[in-house]
Amino acid sequence: MIKTPTSGPDDVDALKVLAASGFAASDVLAVVAKTEGNGCVNDFSRTLSARSWHDVLPPGAVTIMSGGTEGVLSPHTTLIVRLADDAPPTGLAGAVGETALVAKGDLGRRAHVDQVEVVVRETVAAAGLQAEDVHLVLVKCPLLTSADVADCVASGVEPVTADTYESMARSRGATALGIALALGECSSSDVDAALASGAEVWSAVASVSSGAEIQNCQVLVLGATGSEGRLRVAHTVMRDAMDAKAVLEVLGSFGDVPTRVVQLFAKAEASPDGTIRGRRHTMLTDSDLPSTRHARAAVGGLLAGLSGDPCLYVSGGAEGQGPPGGGPVAVVVELLDAPGTTASVAALA
Amino acid sequence: MIKTPTSGPDDVDALKVLAASGFAASDVLAVVAKTEGNGCVNDFSRTLSARSWHDVLPPGAVTIMSGGTEGVLSPHTTLIVRLADDAPPTGLAGAVGETALVAKGDLGRRAHVDQVEVVVRETVAAAGLQAEDVHLVLVKCPLLTSADVADCVASGVEPVTADTYESMARSRGATALGIALALGECSSSDVDAALASGAEVWSAVASVSSGAEIQNCQVLVLGATGSEGRLRVAHTVMRDAMDAKAVLEVLGSFGDVPTRVVQLFAKAEASPDGTIRGRRHTMLTDSDLPSTRHARAAVGGLLAGLSGDPCLYVSGGAEGQGPPGGGPVAVVVELLDAPGTTASVAALA
Amino acid sequence: MIKTPTSGPDDVDALKVLAASGFAASDVLAVVAKTEGNGCVNDFSRTLSARSWHDVLPPGAVTIMSGGTEGVLSPHTTLIVRLADDAPPTGLAGAVGETALVAKGDLGRRAHVDQVEVVVRETVAAAGLQAEDVHLVLVKCPLLTSADVADCVASGVEPVTADTYESMARSRGATALGIALALGECSSSDVDAALASGAEVWSAVASVSSGAEIQNCQVLVLGATGSEGRLRVAHTVMRDAMDAKAVLEVLGSFGDVPTRVVQLFAKAEASPDGTIRGRRHTMLTDSDLPSTRHARAAVGGLLAGLSGDPCLYVSGGAEGQGPPGGGPVAVVVELLDAPGTTASVAALA
Amino acid sequence: MIKTPTSGPDDVDALKVLAASGFAASDVLAVVAKTEGNGCVNDFSRTLSARSWHDVLPPGAVTIMSGGTEGVLSPHTTLIVRLADDAPPTGLAGAVGETALVAKGDLGRRAHVDQVEVVVRETVAAAGLQAEDVHLVLVKCPLLTSADVADCVASGVEPVTADTYESMARSRGATALGIALALGECSSSDVDAALASGAEVWSAVASVSSGAEIQNCQVLVLGATGSEGRLRVAHTVMRDAMDAKAVLEVLGSFGDVPTRVVQLFAKAEASPDGTIRGRRHTMLTDSDLPSTRHARAAVGGLLAGLSGDPCLYVSGGAEGQGPPGGGPVAVVVELLDAPGTTASVAALA
Repeated sequence: MIKTPTSGPDDVDALKVLAASGFAASDVLAVVAKTEGNGCVNDFSRTLSARSWHDVLPPGAVTIMSGGTEGVLSPHTTLIVRLADDAPPTGLAGAVGETALVAKGDLGRRAHVDQVEVVVRETVAAAGLQAEDVHLVLVKCPLLTSADVADCVASGVEPVTADTYESMARSRGATALGIALALGECSSSDVDAALASGAEVWSAVASVSSGAEIQNCQVLVLGATGSEGRLRVAHTVMRDAMDAKAVLEVLGSFGDVPTRVVQLFAKAEASPDGTIRGRRHTMLTDSDLPSTRHARAAVGGLLAGLSGDPCLYVSGGAEGQGPPGGGPVAVVVELLDAPGTTASVAALA
Repeated sequence: MIKTPTSGPDDVDALKVLAASGFAASDVLAVVAKTEGNGCVNDFSRTLSARSWHDVLPPGAVTIMSGGTEGVLSPHTTLIVRLADDAPPTGLAGAVGETALVAKGDLGRRAHVDQVEVVVRETVAAAGLQAEDVHLVLVKCPLLTSADVADCVASGVEPVTADTYESMARSRGATALGIALALGECSSSDVDAALASGAEVWSAVASVSSGAEIQNCQVLVLGATGSEGRLRVAHTVMRDAMDAKAVLEVLGSFGDVPTRVVQLFAKAEASPDGTIRGRRHTMLTDSDLPSTRHARAAVGGLLAGLSGDPCLYVSGGAEGQGPPGGGPVAVVVELLDAPGTTASVAALA
Repeated sequence: MIKTPTSGPDDVDALKVLAASGFAASDVLAVVAKTEGNGCVNDFSRTLSARSWHDVLPPGAVTIMSGGTEGVLSPHTTLIVRLADDAPPTGLAGAVGETALVAKGDLGRRAHVDQVEVVVRETVAAAGLQAEDVHLVLVKCPLLTSADVADCVASGVEPVTADTYESMARSRGATALGIALALGECSSSDVDAALASGAEVWSAVASVSSGAEIQNCQVLVLGATGSEGRLRVAHTVMRDAMDAKAVLEVLGSFGDVPTRVVQLFAKAEASPDGTIRGRRHTMLTDSDLPSTRHARAAVGGLLAGLSGDPCLYVSGGAEGQGPPGGGPVAVVVELLDAPGTTASVAALA
Repeated sequence: MIKTPTSGPDDVDALKVLAASGFAASDVLAVVAKTEGNGCVNDFSRTLSARSWHDVLPPGAVTIMSGGTEGVLSPHTTLIVRLADDAPPTGLAGAVGETALVAKGDLGRRAHVDQVEVVVRETVAAAGLQAEDVHLVLVKCPLLTSADVADCVASGVEPVTADTYESMARSRGATALGIALALGECSSSDVDAALASGAEVWSAVASVSSGAEIQNCQVLVLGATGSEGRLRVAHTVMRDAMDAKAVLEVLGSFGDVPTRVVQLFAKAEASPDGTIRGRRHTMLTDSDLPSTRHARAAVGGLLAGLSGDPCLYVSGGAEGQGPPGGGPVAVVVELLDAPGTTASVAALA
């Protein structure tokens, strides 16, 4: 896992850090980036970043570009690299996968959920993990543009919503349900209830982001492999966007040893009922600024303050990811005094 | 000090809380509000709130309306009330004052600084405080609209800037210099250097907000009066927008006694050099979202998480208020086990 | 009809123009204003303007505040004044009315439509007009805030939508259907079809704007009374947001006599299929800028250019008002060489 | 000149239209695109489009990507193609050129003006045109990012402005002065006066757009070559953003023959004095929406309505391009009944 600040969405200088760490572009499993667009429908910073990386990565590498570095958040990329078979263990295991194209009429519906479920199961298995050892399932999923909505209508298929911004939420929600189903966090009938009536069903390790730059779902699974190596991963769930306590607890969960935060993967959202801690928030009535931008800025401000690092992965819109208004947080740390290769994380530029 | 959530900018229901606490509208010295506009030039939530309060308050009461409740921040009002002469001490002292109109051509210039200095000195004295006991000087100051700029030009006066959003920064900066000068935090030549060349001069207790709803500067001074009463005030300076450490320290500075946070008064800004902790932030290159909105959302997220309260006074644009990228934070707490009247803070609805 | 530019949402200087024209505030039937907010959910410029006018107008006068003066549009107010019984005819007739409160659960539903229908019928009759002589039915209708949505849910009522911005569209749509029904432009079963399945049903004279500043529907009806007087009114329907031809035709429909445009009342919207003249527009995929702001700016630019006047009433969101992507335009002109009182229109400041 | 709608910033399908017209990518002199970003500092749609085109075009081809398709404007590209030496004349002549890198400290200053002047002179000559036959000088110029400002400061150079959005205006202004100087529209001392004191100096044929995607100035010159061929070009100057009259006149200036509009190249801006036709506009006091977005939407609405085509090149920010608040408009039309090759313009998809 190699994290590098970027000077712009098309900055692939992380390749130099990769090379300095002894890896080649062909070793990259996944690129997880925070880019500096609005994180919404017309965020071309994601597309530009994905295009720039696809030009240099091997086929099969997944790109999970999340737009929106509001407030103190800083644009950066995180490369997930495949180690040599004989490399010493790091403490982390991961794998990537991707679904077939999600049909535009399926987006946000049960077929979408099922496509995700299958691929998440396969990817967890490919990583050699049990469901209970999975701490993060990071997915990039598609959305509906105006053209997609028109295509649906023209072919007699009703899209799940005609509102392009709302389609991002529906896609995230269906994807999160697929993850929860794959990991046994809910039942198939729970999924139906969530899709039909908004029943509260969620995953504690899902982190899903939608974008116009892809047409399928791209999946990264991360889990813990035990007590060897210098890396550790854990997760928690923020119960709301102000839940400093949960974050401090997970940051302190690695025992009384010196650690360094490598990366936080967090989801943020405006609580759908319009309140936080019993007080009114204005994120859902602000027509100038999408609620996902509000939420990323606020949660990013809290997490950066608590971790001391502005290069965090905070993504907006947490439908089905943690409780309403809250969201999962996965933390990867390095044990500074542990034996083992540091190459996997040393290259924090 | 009576803090009440609001249902909109024109909500003056805090009057009911006031009455229930045994006070009349005529006892109100100041209303300090966070309203839910954009906090920028065209924020009419401030004007609406100021108008609503002016309809019910006595002449001389000051209104300091700060727009922008991004992220988890929640709209609310804080009433500062004059106690009866024979009331027991609270631990806090305060007073209000206001300058004459700030001429549009003076705004952001030395004459503006000097107007503020005089009134701040007078108000500190009126509160019975020494400069070293002052923990907060909260000021609302004017800005330049397009019409103001045109008026200047028509009358042969060059305005300090022709950019209306920039005029907010210039007005805040000059006001903060006036405060620093009044409190002995800088010299007169420091002021000239700051105005001429941007030399770094700042106050550790200034909190200044600008708005189109007023034409003069309205001032509230708060300070500590000693060890009696149930209220305490302290201040710190965040060195940057991620400075959780400073905030935790000041929150912990009241000793090992049970306390409740009554209010935090904080300033937030994007660091002018475009970086935070050595990483790039994007607040100054985001043409969709003014940097003050970014900064309030991020710092508000951090402070709300640390204090557990979303009804905080976090204001954007900290020119001359704390170091570049940082800002002062004043904290008022109630000592829960101390003797004395609770009326002054009990009415937290 | 007295049109006056404003210096801000709280500017009621039109009263001076009114007085100079020989009228009193008590003669005002309606204030129709364009204010300079975003025209969306959190537009407090409308509320501020409505409050400022309610402080000076008689009970029963309706206020129709439409936010959003994007591009070249200029903030202004149009006062509709009741003439003395013995005043010479002007060529225009108008009346105002208002519904009872629209229950939050009814908003956007059939009960809302029916409330509007009844009041529009009554108001047309009160103006002494036949349906075919009506050229404009201007209505301000409510919306759902986050608090309204929560109230619905708490009381077991499903709101028509939980999205506050979307609630503006639903409210406009139901109101327009009520107008169409009252004027015989559609049948009751057409209304049901439109509500149930989005069947295309629209009025050619409806102009509906929604806002958080009111809880009922406020109605203004304008029509033509014949060939006497100096004022004339006509209407057309723009088939899309570029339909200069329709506008030029209606502007030229008053014969070969010198005229002056008094006011244009137009509706604007992004065509829901994402295209205009067969080309893609981006108004529905721009997450930074609501589509109503795009549409007002574009149509306002066209109408201001064609009429030579930036003080026009162009309102965004034309659900049920003209065909998808288009909207009605009503034009009031003064015949410059006709006999009769000019007082009714002379006061164009 | 081949104009093609695009489905996104990375759509290079215009190449297919090019091929169908008998040209190769290597024949392309310039790509002039309207992309769907915000047209401001953080518009990555321009960068994405430029990158996509650079992947397929020959070295030396210039890319002039202008962001912002507000309102009815539709994203598209216009390819300017080099004809074979023995091709029949079209009526148009053009050439391209580019400056060396503009040093960040020079941006917006006299050295920048002079760099542009030299290249514009050379490019006009390369096109075989006299200054009086030039109808359009279209230039893409750089801007200052936060990083650029910091680099300047670090190297002891004061940038022309530290405000990134303002740097776009300064760059456009200096570039326009270079064009005016090259074409003899102003003197060298006029340039100094404009830079020093904002004296009103402008070009009637300049169209300048700034962006972060380039570091130098890329220039396209278009002019008229006489009475042969099917294409004609003319230009006018809108005196303000509502100047329909000027546009109708230039559209009608090609005589009483059937024509089709091929492309309009227009500049739009908010008049700096905050008024239009003596009324207040709100483009400069709207902190939610940059004034360039307002202006493009309004002028785009007018031009699209008048021309019947939403695929127009309307660019925001007209410093030094036409009078304050107005801007140049160049029109290319095809004479439908004229002899000669249609290939050069036929491929309007």
